[in-house]
Amino acid sequence: MSSHAVIMAGGVGSRFWPLSTPQFPKQFIDILGCGRSLIQLTADRIQGICPMDNLWVVTNEKYVDIVHEQLPQIPVAHILAEPAARNTAPCIAWACRMIKDEDPDANVIVTPSDAVVMNPQEFQRVIRESLEFTQNNPGIVTIGIRPNRPETGYGYVCMKGKQTDGIAPVLEFREKPDLETARQYVADGNYLWNAGIFVWNVNTVLDALDRYKPELSSQIDSMVRSGRVGEIFPTLEKISVDYAIMEPASRDSLVFTHPADFGWSDLGNWSSLHEKLEHDCEGNGSVGNVSFHECSNCVVHASGLKKVVLQGLDGYIVSEKDGQMLVCRRSEEQRIREFSAE
Amino acid sequence: MSSHAVIMAGGVGSRFWPLSTPQFPKQFIDILGCGRSLIQLTADRIQGICPMDNLWVVTNEKYVDIVHEQLPQIPVAHILAEPAARNTAPCIAWACRMIKDEDPDANVIVTPSDAVVMNPQEFQRVIRESLEFTQNNPGIVTIGIRPNRPETGYGYVCMKGKQTDGIAPVLEFREKPDLETARQYVADGNYLWNAGIFVWNVNTVLDALDRYKPELSSQIDSMVRSGRVGEIFPTLEKISVDYAIMEPASRDSLVFTHPADFGWSDLGNWSSLHEKLEHDCEGNGSVGNVSFHECSNCVVHASGLKKVVLQGLDGYIVSEKDGQMLVCRRSEEQRIREFSAE
Repeated sequence: MSSHAVIMAGGVGSRFWPLSTPQFPKQFIDILGCGRSLIQLTADRIQGICPMDNLWVVTNEKYVDIVHEQLPQIPVAHILAEPAARNTAPCIAWACRMIKDEDPDANVIVTPSDAVVMNPQEFQRVIRESLEFTQNNPGIVTIGIRPNRPETGYGYVCMKGKQTDGIAPVLEFREKPDLETARQYVADGNYLWNAGIFVWNVNTVLDALDRYKPELSSQIDSMVRSGRVGEIFPTLEKISVDYAIMEPASRDSLVFTHPADFGWSDLGNWSSLHEKLEHDCEGNGSVGNVSFHECSNCVVHASGLKKVVLQGLDGYIVSEKDGQMLVCRRSEEQRIREFSAE
Repeated sequence: MSSHAVIMAGGVGSRFWPLSTPQFPKQFIDILGCGRSLIQLTADRIQGICPMDNLWVVTNEKYVDIVHEQLPQIPVAHILAEPAARNTAPCIAWACRMIKDEDPDANVIVTPSDAVVMNPQEFQRVIRESLEFTQNNPGIVTIGIRPNRPETGYGYVCMKGKQTDGIAPVLEFREKPDLETARQYVADGNYLWNAGIFVWNVNTVLDALDRYKPELSSQIDSMVRSGRVGEIFPTLEKISVDYAIMEPASRDSLVFTHPADFGWSDLGNWSSLHEKLEHDCEGNGSVGNVSFHECSNCVVHASGLKKVVLQGLDGYIVSEKDGQMLVCRRSEEQRIREFSAE
């Protein structure tokens, strides 16, 4: 069995400003203070499953140098440079079409570059089982994370009936729910978080694209044949893989899910980072040389500074990078994007 | 009339950490964000009174390079490098002894390097009047600032009777008072803040030193004759000019004061800096590219950063320099020294 992996790394991560900027977004940052950026951690955990030669990264053309610097083992030809952001369907279709040329029967893992997995071994076990499944079945596997809270910030995957282990057929996808609905989902037990991690055979996904998005499929085909990426890619339909492939495929009973529990977080905001960091007795989590005095429930990322002293802050975000600094109540973090644009 | 000026620049300014550090203390910092450091502003306002060739700076030996860089017009031989801190009397005595060798009948202005004067023209007028006085009288003039509040952080000068303009004899000096006493001083009208700015003829002060501190006087004399500063200076008595000269001289009716009102502040803490900075409608004062959201009564100095966004802070100090950062309630500013030592 030959496996390839596609890391999607085109995001901008403006909610983590000033840590994450359009010039150097979150997936390239050591946001956990562990010595590895999120994309490096993503490559690390995939390395146990497929060789680095079979890794692909799709990113905006302005991040190609950063990807190459952070992941020098990935073949340069496998770093696909998007001249424009067209959402996930064109990105994934392009990568899979390239993989087919290199390896016509490859099984493929697709993953975001900026999520956190606390248990990489369990991640690898789940992915291996999914790869074995797609080796023998023309199905698409989406990894479903068992919810531990009624999260309203994620989409959900609904299984056909409850499943305790192994791969199960998917009934349908559900958009981000309101709190009441999210509570029902958690209570029901057959709803899982959609992590945006997919496993499939390259022929399965290209067939599906051909069936559900024939125009996109033929555009991608002629783009790859002609090499005219700069001209064609920006004209492709801006559409997510969920709308383009997963939803219609689920209606045709082609989608399966592997329920999983490997400490996944999409690390979409400061609260989810706070949750992943170690805390002191007052609930302060930090990356950098930070000392707290009468502070509680703060989340601090200032690894570029030599020394940070904080006094008298309860529930604040403090963050510094490359000469830009933010101090902001955690309750106001949805305004960070607006602050960064000032 | 030949005038010289002595700028005392040996202070460490630990209350402004991380802005001010033992390696680069407050007098060398552009703390007001006006493009000039405090010692440069001090030299600027003296320049209108006496030529730069007649300026002297006494500082710790580790700051000599900084002084030379910030005030390149001052003759290198006029930067006196203290091998150890011995308070103001040895510092002033040394400078005046050096001045006498160069200019045996000089009138001398002595000033700290780290105070702020908002009205330099009025400063120059007051100093010129004082210089004329010492040209013709063997008295010592200390500049007395008219108090605008019952400040407990300053020493006071008590005039013999009320004086509205010009130079008046001093009855006595008073140490930092408690609030009740300070209120009385302000109500009385014949008490002034002791700004530590002195004007005298070089012979007057050397005679006074000889009379009140004969041992120090002869040690300074032999130090200057022999050039053995490194050996002798550290053995000198650690004593302020107030105790060594001003107080005994005032008992001998040799001390006068020029009441003045030129927007003086010793800039001894963050609150006095806050007072001197321009404020927005919510009372925030800042140096640097700072934007405030729902903040009030903050004082911010972060001119080394490209951009600072603050949200939801009431009454805080925020300060950054050379990779060290402080966020601290203004009410806790007396603990900054302790924070800096961590």
